[in-house]
Amino acid sequence: MMNRKIRDYGISIGTMPTGSNNSITDVKGVKVGHTTLDEGKIKTGVTAILPHEDNIFKEKLVAASHVINGFGKSTGIIQIEEMGTVETPIILTNTLSVGIAYETLIKYMLRQNKDIGDTTGTINPIICECNDGRINDIRGLHIKPEHIVEAIEKCNIDFDEGNVGAGTGMMCYGLKGGIGSSSRIIEFDGIKYTVGVLVLSNFGSLEDFVLNGNPIGQRLFKEIQDINTIEDKGSIILIVATDIPLESRQLKRIIKRVYPGISRTGSYTGNGSGEVVIGFSTANRIKHYERNDIIDIKIINENKIDKIFKATVEATEEAILNSLICSSSTVDRRGKIVYSLKDLL
Amino acid sequence: MMNRKIRDYGISIGTMPTGSNNSITDVKGVKVGHTTLDEGKIKTGVTAILPHEDNIFKEKLVAASHVINGFGKSTGIIQIEEMGTVETPIILTNTLSVGIAYETLIKYMLRQNKDIGDTTGTINPIICECNDGRINDIRGLHIKPEHIVEAIEKCNIDFDEGNVGAGTGMMCYGLKGGIGSSSRIIEFDGIKYTVGVLVLSNFGSLEDFVLNGNPIGQRLFKEIQDINTIEDKGSIILIVATDIPLESRQLKRIIKRVYPGISRTGSYTGNGSGEVVIGFSTANRIKHYERNDIIDIKIINENKIDKIFKATVEATEEAILNSLICSSSTVDRRGKIVYSLKDLL
Amino acid sequence: MMNRKIRDYGISIGTMPTGSNNSITDVKGVKVGHTTLDEGKIKTGVTAILPHEDNIFKEKLVAASHVINGFGKSTGIIQIEEMGTVETPIILTNTLSVGIAYETLIKYMLRQNKDIGDTTGTINPIICECNDGRINDIRGLHIKPEHIVEAIEKCNIDFDEGNVGAGTGMMCYGLKGGIGSSSRIIEFDGIKYTVGVLVLSNFGSLEDFVLNGNPIGQRLFKEIQDINTIEDKGSIILIVATDIPLESRQLKRIIKRVYPGISRTGSYTGNGSGEVVIGFSTANRIKHYERNDIIDIKIINENKIDKIFKATVEATEEAILNSLICSSSTVDRRGKIVYSLKDLL
Amino acid sequence: MMNRKIRDYGISIGTMPTGSNNSITDVKGVKVGHTTLDEGKIKTGVTAILPHEDNIFKEKLVAASHVINGFGKSTGIIQIEEMGTVETPIILTNTLSVGIAYETLIKYMLRQNKDIGDTTGTINPIICECNDGRINDIRGLHIKPEHIVEAIEKCNIDFDEGNVGAGTGMMCYGLKGGIGSSSRIIEFDGIKYTVGVLVLSNFGSLEDFVLNGNPIGQRLFKEIQDINTIEDKGSIILIVATDIPLESRQLKRIIKRVYPGISRTGSYTGNGSGEVVIGFSTANRIKHYERNDIIDIKIINENKIDKIFKATVEATEEAILNSLICSSSTVDRRGKIVYSLKDLL
Repeated sequence: MMNRKIRDYGISIGTMPTGSNNSITDVKGVKVGHTTLDEGKIKTGVTAILPHEDNIFKEKLVAASHVINGFGKSTGIIQIEEMGTVETPIILTNTLSVGIAYETLIKYMLRQNKDIGDTTGTINPIICECNDGRINDIRGLHIKPEHIVEAIEKCNIDFDEGNVGAGTGMMCYGLKGGIGSSSRIIEFDGIKYTVGVLVLSNFGSLEDFVLNGNPIGQRLFKEIQDINTIEDKGSIILIVATDIPLESRQLKRIIKRVYPGISRTGSYTGNGSGEVVIGFSTANRIKHYERNDIIDIKIINENKIDKIFKATVEATEEAILNSLICSSSTVDRRGKIVYSLKDLL
Repeated sequence: MMNRKIRDYGISIGTMPTGSNNSITDVKGVKVGHTTLDEGKIKTGVTAILPHEDNIFKEKLVAASHVINGFGKSTGIIQIEEMGTVETPIILTNTLSVGIAYETLIKYMLRQNKDIGDTTGTINPIICECNDGRINDIRGLHIKPEHIVEAIEKCNIDFDEGNVGAGTGMMCYGLKGGIGSSSRIIEFDGIKYTVGVLVLSNFGSLEDFVLNGNPIGQRLFKEIQDINTIEDKGSIILIVATDIPLESRQLKRIIKRVYPGISRTGSYTGNGSGEVVIGFSTANRIKHYERNDIIDIKIINENKIDKIFKATVEATEEAILNSLICSSSTVDRRGKIVYSLKDLL
Repeated sequence: MMNRKIRDYGISIGTMPTGSNNSITDVKGVKVGHTTLDEGKIKTGVTAILPHEDNIFKEKLVAASHVINGFGKSTGIIQIEEMGTVETPIILTNTLSVGIAYETLIKYMLRQNKDIGDTTGTINPIICECNDGRINDIRGLHIKPEHIVEAIEKCNIDFDEGNVGAGTGMMCYGLKGGIGSSSRIIEFDGIKYTVGVLVLSNFGSLEDFVLNGNPIGQRLFKEIQDINTIEDKGSIILIVATDIPLESRQLKRIIKRVYPGISRTGSYTGNGSGEVVIGFSTANRIKHYERNDIIDIKIINENKIDKIFKATVEATEEAILNSLICSSSTVDRRGKIVYSLKDLL
Repeated sequence: MMNRKIRDYGISIGTMPTGSNNSITDVKGVKVGHTTLDEGKIKTGVTAILPHEDNIFKEKLVAASHVINGFGKSTGIIQIEEMGTVETPIILTNTLSVGIAYETLIKYMLRQNKDIGDTTGTINPIICECNDGRINDIRGLHIKPEHIVEAIEKCNIDFDEGNVGAGTGMMCYGLKGGIGSSSRIIEFDGIKYTVGVLVLSNFGSLEDFVLNGNPIGQRLFKEIQDINTIEDKGSIILIVATDIPLESRQLKRIIKRVYPGISRTGSYTGNGSGEVVIGFSTANRIKHYERNDIIDIKIINENKIDKIFKATVEATEEAILNSLICSSSTVDRRGKIVYSLKDLL
């Protein structure tokens, strides 16, 4: 992984220690893969997140979802809310490609599980999206089934950030945004646990951008006159992974804390923005074919949950900054330059 | 307990076995107590439910709440939703007496717990209500602090149903309603568990009333011309107790199934009706001063939850019928008779 | 339209008058179309609902959604909840074909609107589903893009009910289910308004089935021994249309009343069932390119909303019965007969 | 009004213009009144907000509520959520005094409305609370009925901020908090509208405090060693008032934007914090005895809502800062000093 992340520029967010890669994949078992399409007006892609390394349909994970602003088209949210589990990889892509991602993920799951739709029920695909239509020719529907499969198959502990995968055509605070990640370490009963966040950033107006408390966006906005006359549209997708034992209700409380993390980067969450968070914990596996009627799970003592809240806020802010700083300047579909943060600094 | 319940009239609801008392107190540890005010225009009261026999603030129970129609003034719902626990007895009374019940329950809890508001936080009182203003002089505010305390202190396994306690002045389907209860037994991993429901019924129009599938309300409505020109206002409060191990999310799914139980008695859930359900499970105690960071709980294998859903529907329907059949005819504050179901049958 | 509906068998549900076709298309502007695949093991299809006859993206309608049990994969719900509008036709199909329906509806909308994804934002496709995998070879993914387009293009005031369109492979109460519809007329300020319901029914166990208060399912269950050993899985999708002026919050309250309607047919709403309701009102159009900052809308005086609640309950119960009675017996993918209600009566 | 607010110290939040008093009472008709108890260990009080000057039960206002973190005991939220209206003054006080405030507000409303509980239904009192138990002898239950009535009767356009009324015993970021307010002006269709926010602040740890982007709390935390070893408990109540025409769903979207406003002051929203927002719009009055079945209301063109979001974020941040800067240092119930921000600066 060759990203220079925000810490490599001497900027540390918060006070808690990061995991070894400062990445969502610091949570054991979690992997991320990208397919990037970057040619002319076609600037889009796919990012896949594997919650664990085994059969996720047969061994589901405790999950939760939260919608901050529902101007979004993510799928699978209703069932996460009801059942408190994830049972597929999570796919991120552009808004108009949700259908093809859904269709392809269904086919992928059917291949892996001969029982689905035959001797057992169906499957709940999680597809999340942002609108990359300012940079990408989104009407061209350039994401094809093989791009989805490729992203899943490329999943790895090491992965790129910035304008890669689903982040290829995204804009954040009028700058080039995309994929970013960060993690935090917390100790409970003497054991170290990890909270990891991955974002697909595509929101905010430049004048609102705050870099670690510094309202740098206002200055940049004045300097680079032509950069950003756009509204705070777009969206942000946030994936929160942890190995802390949690029930779904606790996890939902935790993932709501991405909002202060987003806010610290300056946004006020615009009307046309779809902010969706998906969280999962790898600590308790929920078996599809569970034999016992009553099962044991471990959960957090909720009096201790504040540390997890704080970790989530810090990792969210830093993941957004990483999505900015890891991106490179590019040209939008109308030929206009979209600056990266690193080129401006 | 001298109530003749609906089964004593040869009417059995559903197919699952009941607990030994066919009552919410079949769930071990649960107790119910009443204070009844029934003198002239004063027809109101208080019903208290103790979730278990120990210090409920120090040993909270997993809980959930659900609002079917929110034209209601129950307190404590927000925190149950967030934290998934109950930490006080549950008090039922008339709508305008929620304040005095709240104040008195606070004082009761402060006496029992010297730490509340001093070395630890505050307390979340659960007060639920229906409007008994058609029968009772509700503007007179006749509930006093001693009535609340008395109901708590009288809590017992045996308790009356019908027009007693908070049910004294309630009307249901144009007839005399009030307190009713029922229970069901389910087996998991070879062990017997109980689901118990207690209702405070105060809803429905006579012409909509269905008795075990029989639309008897239409017939009664024609026969007793002057009985009921009233709308489907009022409310119903439902308390669901169980000893099945559950997390809050599972419990919330279960208590939502009171709605088919209500519907089977004929109502369409009117605009001015506050339908609120509170559920708790006695299986996992959540300690206020928990020492461990990570704790073990037991939950149900959700593939087996349908039996609990069905038990909840059956016990809800039967509890409503018990609230009707256990009531006696009375006279409202304007001197008009309010018939009981048993006097009409 | 040659369906013999439940009223043609002398069974009337409730007391309110129906619209002229007793159908969701009694609401002016609403149209329904089907594509039916019924050949060997392939028994599935598509049903499209057009909310009005003009450009629905440019002239959105006030809408609301409600999830009764979220074991479902419908798309578009998050944005309806946030924005309170629908902006596409509504597509119903089988669970594993949601992706192809989504993709095709996107392409259809892009063709009709050159601005989407170019000079304006994206689009929120509404795809709802049930699992027809007991009858249909659902793993075969037999729905193709042309089937979606065909259903939209066939939309009409007259449409078939029973095992057609998305209903082709559905089962309800162990019998053949599918598409059913019903409507009710209400007067406000001297003007007649319509509430119409369309269901895609795929839920319930035979022994629970209640026909207009008659628990006929228990009898049928004993007579036809081999008919139904299945659980209450499956789902129901409900579309509620009206021309009554409403804001989204009011509409949400109204569509929650489908639950008593469902309950009256006997179900207790099983764990694996996805109950999703979408409602829209044709009375207020919300322009995509609205010029004024402040706009006028009309809403109902909420003191009068009970009539609409009642209409919704009645039309829901009757629509479910129509989905059963309009269906014909068929053979499932394993060669076993699935009886229709009309063949059993 | 003699408060020196944060602008008087040369600190301006955001870019939008304030109303003439930079206060919630800049919204025409809104008034605020306090009762302050400040003697020895008794440091608590009551703040009342009148939504308009007429009979609020007879002429309700469009309202919405939002719970950020539900560790709170506010009443009336369920019905605001369901019906989208407020029908009483809003009372703020300490957590253990919610009951007496509820009881007293009921009596106040009964005196003003002879029909409540007699010829019409009951009433939904809005009581919001924070725990002032670190400073105040909250177990002493010092709020009496006359204090509630006094706060209502003192309501005025001019009102004090800081440690007054319900804010008397509150702490915010380890400093003296309490009541603060701010407003913003927005133009629609050439007409000026106001968004006003009032907060009761009682949350946050000193080390997290950010003053207009400056993480001043970290510095103060190191300097004043003994100041703050406490967790981010406590709560914040936020009242958002506006004269912009809105439906309840729109208002709910708007009031959710207090969260970025809170976040900008540094908090991550702790476990034990009850964050509750109540919003109302004075533009559409909903008559209790409405005669027409269909009514006209005005709402905002939602494409223009971003300006209101931004106004809400700015006014929230500034109201919190005003609650800090307007407060004076005090001594808690154990005799320890609680510093005010102005004494530290």
